[in-house]
Amino acid sequence: MSRWIQDGDNVDITNERKKGTFDTERMSAWIHGGPEVLKRRREILSFVKSIDDFKDPVPTEFMSREERILNNARKVVAMTDNTDQIDGSDFFGEGMYYQALTMGRDLHAMSLHYVMFIPTLQGQTDDEQLDEWLTKAISRAVVGTYAQTELGHGTNLSKLETTATYDSATEEFVLNSPTITAAKWWPGGLGKSSNYAVVVAQLYTKGECKGPHPFIVQLRDDETHMPLKGIRLGDIGPKLGINGNDNGFLLFDKVRIPRRALLMRYAKVKPDGTYVAPAHSKLGYGTMVFVRSIMIKDQSTQLAAAATIATRYASVRRQGEISPGKGEVQIIDYQTQQFRVFPQMARAFAFMAAATEIRDLYMTVTEQLTHGNTELLAELHVLSSGLKSIVSWDTAQGIEQCRLACGGHGYSQASGFPEIYGYAVGGCTYEGENLVMLLQVARFLMRAAEGVRKGSAKLADIGAYIGKTGPKTSRLTTHYHYTDADLVADLEHAARKQVFRAYDRLKKAQEHLSPEVAWNSVSVELAKASRWHVRVYLVKNFLNKVALAPQDLKFVLTDVARLYAYDIITSSIGAFLEDGYMSSNQMNEVKEGIYECLAKIRPNAVALVDSWDYDDKELKSVLGRRDGNVYPALLEWAQNSQLNRSDVLPSHTKYLGPMMKDARSKL
Amino acid sequence: MSRWIQDGDNVDITNERKKGTFDTERMSAWIHGGPEVLKRRREILSFVKSIDDFKDPVPTEFMSREERILNNARKVVAMTDNTDQIDGSDFFGEGMYYQALTMGRDLHAMSLHYVMFIPTLQGQTDDEQLDEWLTKAISRAVVGTYAQTELGHGTNLSKLETTATYDSATEEFVLNSPTITAAKWWPGGLGKSSNYAVVVAQLYTKGECKGPHPFIVQLRDDETHMPLKGIRLGDIGPKLGINGNDNGFLLFDKVRIPRRALLMRYAKVKPDGTYVAPAHSKLGYGTMVFVRSIMIKDQSTQLAAAATIATRYASVRRQGEISPGKGEVQIIDYQTQQFRVFPQMARAFAFMAAATEIRDLYMTVTEQLTHGNTELLAELHVLSSGLKSIVSWDTAQGIEQCRLACGGHGYSQASGFPEIYGYAVGGCTYEGENLVMLLQVARFLMRAAEGVRKGSAKLADIGAYIGKTGPKTSRLTTHYHYTDADLVADLEHAARKQVFRAYDRLKKAQEHLSPEVAWNSVSVELAKASRWHVRVYLVKNFLNKVALAPQDLKFVLTDVARLYAYDIITSSIGAFLEDGYMSSNQMNEVKEGIYECLAKIRPNAVALVDSWDYDDKELKSVLGRRDGNVYPALLEWAQNSQLNRSDVLPSHTKYLGPMMKDARSKL
Ligand SMILES: Cc1cc2nc3c(=O)[nH]c(=O)nc-3n(C[C@H](O)[C@H](O)[C@H](O)COP(=O)(O)OP(=O)(O)OC[C@H]3O[C@@H](n4cnc5c(N)ncnc54)[C@H](O)[C@@H]3O)c2cc1C
Ligand SMILES: Cc1cc2nc3c(=O)[nH]c(=O)nc-3n(C[C@H](O)[C@H](O)[C@H](O)COP(=O)(O)OP(=O)(O)OC[C@H]3O[C@@H](n4cnc5c(N)ncnc54)[C@H](O)[C@@H]3O)c2cc1C
Repeated sequence: MSRWIQDGDNVDITNERKKGTFDTERMSAWIHGGPEVLKRRREILSFVKSIDDFKDPVPTEFMSREERILNNARKVVAMTDNTDQIDGSDFFGEGMYYQALTMGRDLHAMSLHYVMFIPTLQGQTDDEQLDEWLTKAISRAVVGTYAQTELGHGTNLSKLETTATYDSATEEFVLNSPTITAAKWWPGGLGKSSNYAVVVAQLYTKGECKGPHPFIVQLRDDETHMPLKGIRLGDIGPKLGINGNDNGFLLFDKVRIPRRALLMRYAKVKPDGTYVAPAHSKLGYGTMVFVRSIMIKDQSTQLAAAATIATRYASVRRQGEISPGKGEVQIIDYQTQQFRVFPQMARAFAFMAAATEIRDLYMTVTEQLTHGNTELLAELHVLSSGLKSIVSWDTAQGIEQCRLACGGHGYSQASGFPEIYGYAVGGCTYEGENLVMLLQVARFLMRAAEGVRKGSAKLADIGAYIGKTGPKTSRLTTHYHYTDADLVADLEHAARKQVFRAYDRLKKAQEHLSPEVAWNSVSVELAKASRWHVRVYLVKNFLNKVALAPQDLKFVLTDVARLYAYDIITSSIGAFLEDGYMSSNQMNEVKEGIYECLAKIRPNAVALVDSWDYDDKELKSVLGRRDGNVYPALLEWAQNSQLNRSDVLPSHTKYLGPMMKDARSKL
Repeated sequence: MSRWIQDGDNVDITNERKKGTFDTERMSAWIHGGPEVLKRRREILSFVKSIDDFKDPVPTEFMSREERILNNARKVVAMTDNTDQIDGSDFFGEGMYYQALTMGRDLHAMSLHYVMFIPTLQGQTDDEQLDEWLTKAISRAVVGTYAQTELGHGTNLSKLETTATYDSATEEFVLNSPTITAAKWWPGGLGKSSNYAVVVAQLYTKGECKGPHPFIVQLRDDETHMPLKGIRLGDIGPKLGINGNDNGFLLFDKVRIPRRALLMRYAKVKPDGTYVAPAHSKLGYGTMVFVRSIMIKDQSTQLAAAATIATRYASVRRQGEISPGKGEVQIIDYQTQQFRVFPQMARAFAFMAAATEIRDLYMTVTEQLTHGNTELLAELHVLSSGLKSIVSWDTAQGIEQCRLACGGHGYSQASGFPEIYGYAVGGCTYEGENLVMLLQVARFLMRAAEGVRKGSAKLADIGAYIGKTGPKTSRLTTHYHYTDADLVADLEHAARKQVFRAYDRLKKAQEHLSPEVAWNSVSVELAKASRWHVRVYLVKNFLNKVALAPQDLKFVLTDVARLYAYDIITSSIGAFLEDGYMSSNQMNEVKEGIYECLAKIRPNAVALVDSWDYDDKELKSVLGRRDGNVYPALLEWAQNSQLNRSDVLPSHTKYLGPMMKDARSKL
């Protein structure tokens, strides 16, 4: 039966696993990309388990920040010492898995080194610079980060305040932070770990500002690791999550760096100070799409972890009776519980499908570009910004639903949820603040709507629906006969309607306002249009994937995909009832469809989450343990508490004890 | 103008304060209950500021758990040493304010002592017991907690596993934890601070189980504070929030306690073991309503704090341009930003209004009860359960929206948000898990619906709408002419519709299922009905309060109340469009109403949040500072980071440094 069953497991969870109507191993292979991939995952897992340096002396929840930082540094060195164990070119697959197993969910001293520093060097240096810096970075002779955001500016890069003023006398740039708000703020690993950074600063030469440019800057002494002269930097303090990382601040007091510190792939400054503008506008899209596809994979992995924990726990937690006298039920039997947890599981499936698809699309587009075909590029860029925004937000909300569904124990760090949430929700803000991203998507949508209205739209697949004429009313009869095509048509109707609602309002506002003020005055509607655009894509993509799944997996995946789609529809009922596109009866059918999906998923729920193939080492949750034996494990976990190191704490000896003694003496 | 303006303040925030169109001092008085109350608040504030023991040596975010526990113990002793400074009978007002100022948002060693231990003694002891224990508790000769929840059982009290078996030979009860799941788990202050607890255990006498009963139990030695024989207890480990509290676990190994440890106000056990059942069923409703009205006040205070931080920060943060070349705008000028933050402010106002109302209703009901009038009791009990659920969830979501609206800096603990969220969201789980509460509300609603259908309904004010026949279609023409009465009628329509939708589905399900299984099969719909029931109350109550407000405050409060109501309507558009109750055009009017409210609130936003009268000492947020000078304060705050105590960390010396050195040597 299920490979997840072992002797000594909690009986309820074993029974759930026996109930599963499909082969979890085949499902895992479908999810992760084939049996070969699964085999490799397990090799990596046993390697990681075999290395002592990857073990945490106590669960990381019990460590102070200093202890976490130290623990992470040990592990990251071990991790990068052993990269020969994985296929480094497969960062999306083996790389992310290896890192999750070794480092957990925390960021570490070299996160930015790999995610931003090296890619920036690869993208922005000229050949000579590449030679020098890439060698150093890859060999780990330096640890770098990416310092762009400042105290005063994140979203609006054009107003960064750090200056790099060229001095042709010495052929140097002078880096300076003219104000407090110019302090670099947030870069991962900047506070204590990195000794180099790519610093984004306003380039001044010959008295003119040329806008923000990237410079490679040494921050700390090679030998002593002390900050170099004129450089003030440190940790920015504790955060909602990722406290094992030393996100830092950085101020420059007229620090001189060589002319060749400017990364010169595109723009250049000649020795005499002449500025050479980039030959072609930056083709940065590709990398951004790739980084975001990684983020989407990462977010879906966090949501799937949360759904795994909540589903397994719901199958072992017994609380209350449904039929009096028949004994306490597993809470997974409550319809409200299913309604809380299963849609999160469905979202995780949908987001994983999107992550793979975006990665593949990225490959296609890169390939097309080599033939000069840029057709898909803009839409894809837009889509990945939108996906980043929707996926990170739905993930955050979903994680919290899963946590709350575990009652009191969900609130304990033993559950893993507080860490999962703190880590994942950061994704709503970095790599482009979510609302700002949605407004960018809206620019594309408004251009598309304009094109459609003017009859000149050229829309590739992703946005094609904007130019389509769909049915006047939904073709839904009963949810049993609701085809994928009809469902998609209904969602496209809602999306299109919102796109044009926003467009028409924008046009109307432009009648009496400047284009920009008009834009702001309808921006809430614009953001809504973007959400619809992305959600339609998510559903379509998921349904398409499921349609191609092997027959023995398809039936249960269909329940999951339908739940995902119906949940979107019933969360915005108004969009479908408006103007009689759907009748109340049709909407009732969708609601019934949800209840039907919940009931059908119920017996397969544990098997579905098992299929994601989380090892306990990756899941890091007492509530989500494979074996379901949560209660003894909770008791054992709690023994690690810092407060349990002694029976009587100084808080008693110094304050509460004397207070009580005094009162007793007066009784 | 505004009392909030001072020299040296950030110019943007001062300008906002000058824009305000009403007197913040009068608004504060309206919110808090009159100028006298404000005066008292400020007296309490200056007292607290004058006492050294209330000062935190560093911001608490930088403390380890051990340090927090110690710091809290010092402060709580000082706080309770000085209770003569406040009117102790006014816990809802002066008590909560005093505690917020001294203790911050964390719970402390004596939270449960005051919130549960003493009230339980007051409610459950007989006169002799009251004499003995209340004296000890109030004089602080003992510190107690309330130990009910176990590892295995929280919601379903009837299945608690701790046993108290009467031994008539020695006239003692034997307390025992027969299984691991019987371990008490979660009680606040149980781990290390308390030496006494009210323990809820299954009472066995003469071989029969009489169900869960409360016992007063000594846990630790008076002098040494060591756990008594047979008692194993400790801290349950770190949590999402309230880590300054030692929520604990507790296991009994056949611990003998005297017969009189059973709290005997209602049930008794005679020396020979005869069980005397309670004469009348417990009238516990009153206390529960009171505790929940405190929770609602507390939750609204947290949401208001979040809205204050986000609003003030949005007025000093400048990012991006709306009109090109016109300079960066305050982010509060973005419509999307207003749409994120202002509805949270409106909710906080609505919830505060509900908290006061529930407290007053509680008084009325208590008064009515003395005349044997129980008419309102059930409805009020139900309402307070429902409110607890809706308010805590909307608060949690609202806090996160406010946090995300602050971009990167919202993620830092400097913002205060991580602590506010971690603290407040606990309220979704304790005092009755939210979904379980909603299902309790639904029982009342289904009885009401049944009564209406059978023509026998007796519904007091709160649920009267269930029996009313409203208009067939909404009377809304334009949002300018939308009266409170029409608005309420529309909301009541939606609520009633969902109540009967759930009822009809329940009846239909009961045709082929047992009543209990049928109940479960429609429970998602039941919970929805409960949400509507509570939200209708929240809107009605808020509108009523505003209608009675002084003229000079009413206009801006009306904008706030309308925003709250319109936000509810547009979040459930389907409920109004269904069956043509509203047309798309009418719904568009509501949407326009929202945009209008946002624009009207815009110039008053800072003044509105100022009116809540948060001192920086209470707000504890670098982003929400009164003076708006957030950037230098962020830099200063960060210097406290544990990691900034030395320039070079062991993580470098031990791991990263050698790694780089090794690589350099090979270059
Ligand atoms: C965990 C974490 C890690 C990070 N790591 C790094 C790093 O390694 N290196 C680095 O350089 N930076 C890093 N950052 C910074 C991050 O990139 C920025 O915080 C992010 O880009 C958001 O910008 P902001 O903070 O300026 O938000 P703001 O722009 O100030 O956002 C505040 C509010 O204003 C609104 N807003 C802003 N502009 C507009 C607009 N034009 N229209 C409408 N609304 C608007 C937003 O929607 C938001 O509600 C990190 C941040 C976090 C939280
Ligand atoms: C911060 C905090 C402080 C606390 N302090 C104390 C304290 O001082 N003293 C004390 O004794 N306890 C305390 N508790 C425990 C708290 O009272 C319980 O956690 C709470 O009552 C929820 O119960 P549970 O944990 O058993 O949740 P569960 O009942 O296990 O809930 C898990 C899931 O099951 C669902 N569920 C359960 N029953 C039903 C049902 N009948 N129908 C439908 N769904 C159902 C819930 O909706 C939820 O989704 C505290 C808890 C927290 C988080």
